Amino acid sequence: MKVDGVPYRGVWLEADGSTVGIIDQTRLPFEFVTLKLTEMAQAAHAIKSMQVRGAPLIGAMAAWGMALAMRADPSDASLRKAYDILVETRPTAVNLRWALDDMLGVLKNTPADRRVEAAYRRAREIADEDVAINRAIGEHAAGLIGAAWDRKNQNPRAAQPERLNILTHCNAGWLATVDWGTALAGIYVAHDEGLPIHVWVDETRPRNQGASLTAWELGRHGVPFTLIPDNAGGHLMQHGLVDLCIVGTDRVTANGDVANKIGTYLKAVAAKDNDVPFYVALPSPTIDWTLASGRDIPIEQRDAREVTHITGRDEKGALHTVEITPPNTPAANYGFDVTPARLVTALVTERGVAPATPEGLKSLFPERKK
Amino acid sequence: MKVDGVPYRGVWLEADGSTVGIIDQTRLPFEFVTLKLTEMAQAAHAIKSMQVRGAPLIGAMAAWGMALAMRADPSDASLRKAYDILVETRPTAVNLRWALDDMLGVLKNTPADRRVEAAYRRAREIADEDVAINRAIGEHAAGLIGAAWDRKNQNPRAAQPERLNILTHCNAGWLATVDWGTALAGIYVAHDEGLPIHVWVDETRPRNQGASLTAWELGRHGVPFTLIPDNAGGHLMQHGLVDLCIVGTDRVTANGDVANKIGTYLKAVAAKDNDVPFYVALPSPTIDWTLASGRDIPIEQRDAREVTHITGRDEKGALHTVEITPPNTPAANYGFDVTPARLVTALVTERGVAPATPEGLKSLFPERKK
Repeated sequence: MKVDGVPYRGVWLEADGSTVGIIDQTRLPFEFVTLKLTEMAQAAHAIKSMQVRGAPLIGAMAAWGMALAMRADPSDASLRKAYDILVETRPTAVNLRWALDDMLGVLKNTPADRRVEAAYRRAREIADEDVAINRAIGEHAAGLIGAAWDRKNQNPRAAQPERLNILTHCNAGWLATVDWGTALAGIYVAHDEGLPIHVWVDETRPRNQGASLTAWELGRHGVPFTLIPDNAGGHLMQHGLVDLCIVGTDRVTANGDVANKIGTYLKAVAAKDNDVPFYVALPSPTIDWTLASGRDIPIEQRDAREVTHITGRDEKGALHTVEITPPNTPAANYGFDVTPARLVTALVTERGVAPATPEGLKSLFPERKK
Repeated sequence: MKVDGVPYRGVWLEADGSTVGIIDQTRLPFEFVTLKLTEMAQAAHAIKSMQVRGAPLIGAMAAWGMALAMRADPSDASLRKAYDILVETRPTAVNLRWALDDMLGVLKNTPADRRVEAAYRRAREIADEDVAINRAIGEHAAGLIGAAWDRKNQNPRAAQPERLNILTHCNAGWLATVDWGTALAGIYVAHDEGLPIHVWVDETRPRNQGASLTAWELGRHGVPFTLIPDNAGGHLMQHGLVDLCIVGTDRVTANGDVANKIGTYLKAVAAKDNDVPFYVALPSPTIDWTLASGRDIPIEQRDAREVTHITGRDEKGALHTVEITPPNTPAANYGFDVTPARLVTALVTERGVAPATPEGLKSLFPERKK
């Protein structure tokens, strides 16, 4: 997607054909800084320090890290060492291990003198595959968005609508992937095709991924949006100001239950109460076929300090981390919640759109049938 | 209620019998500072600058402002001047005008040489009446809370419960009234009676009245509580961690619809989805008998800066106001929302508990029958 008119990806190969470029996401939304990585250790640091974040982007970054390692030293020892270092950077990220296993499989069967070329080729393929998956999700979601726009225009009781209002929660945008994102992919596709999209961006307390990352990437690409407190979405739906919701997900269980950032469930239940379609966009690796329902998903509890403290920029541009509660306030910080499948209008994957049911999922992924 | 063991009210007469004491609420939650007011102009400033806030407390403060004016000069001219100045401090506050009209009615029929005594007596009565109303709300709400505790203890499938979990939104506590508060009154009564209450305090973005005021007053009185992001309540309800919700309200319409701080509706719809009782506590002047339903309530839109900026304290104790979004982020800031009566389990007033229906309201206030 674009940053003020210039196309960017979450990670890219620089014009020299060997250096890897990234956006330092720890500086967002206050500063837009790109970094040029020339060593595997820098790639490992980028993942560990969350300069790059988002499961798909971490996977691609790890693959590029392996390529950088091969450029420095294509030996078996170097290959193994790079794998061992990179796989420890974010231990719970599924995409990270998947990408590293893939790279290792390719490279260990490649003679050392051809590993640099093979590593760069495969890393590029992994990145391009992520782009293709997200672009496909975006095409399918844009179909739903276009249909909603058509319905809105066909409402005989209403004046000619000015825009289609889409509500999203957290950040499932291109910054979390190599490009396009998941929940935002359809928004970018529809916007780029000329639909008058306007996005209500949930702030997404306590880490404010909406207020910082989603607001930043939509704004830089030029998609009209308005930031709202997480409290506002229900009111907007009650007043016909939300035409549809679309969110990403951390994990979808075999019955179509959706684990996503805390607060997603509140929007889904309000959407149901107001007959607003609620879509969930996901690449197929997000589906956890081993879990029967969302009840089985453990809920991460995070540091209370994320609730009681916040970082922002003063008028002079200096960053401050400030406490926004009485001293020693006890706080709870649940990382995500589970939206039951009954509240999800449809799941949007790279293979198409399906109901959030076991049958719906299996219709898209018949190879998963037992 | 108590502040670290010492009883306080939102406004009080000092031991000298003439000075009026208040808490400077603009310094909360970071500093607890009390002020001694000796002049009417100080009372006007306290209201205008929001050193005191909350409709009931503003009314009582204005009454005390009239008393201070009479002490300085009990003439007719002084009486009229005090009324004119005080009534302009917060033009939209119903309680403010009501209290001033009441004081004016008493004083203009009192000879000037007896106005000081009459003014102090009536101001004290107005404050005491607010306390009595809120205490009555608290008694009725505590009945509901006690019943919920009994039900929880009688659940044969569950282990002996450790505590009763109550979720509240925004601040409808004693800081907004002379004492007890409205939504929190029942919590204070039940806690003081020894029930093991634990309160989930919604942060209440964007102005964070929960994180600052509710967290402060519950903590200082000694009621166990945990601050949560507004996003968390639905997840807690899904997991049986909320036994009941209780909130205050800005306005209840004749059909039982409830206007309250933005985000209240999201909690109410989630409560319904999880069979969690959702109570609304209110003094009867909050009922707007002239409005048939919540549809007729205009929704205030506030400054976007309340969403994009926040004030907190750094580690050295210095306050900073920081921007938490990309520069020039467009934001919407709806002040409140309307929870439809169908989602409200019951209304709790100083006269008792009733269903959120026209019949329910009229059963408590039969004098309102046309």
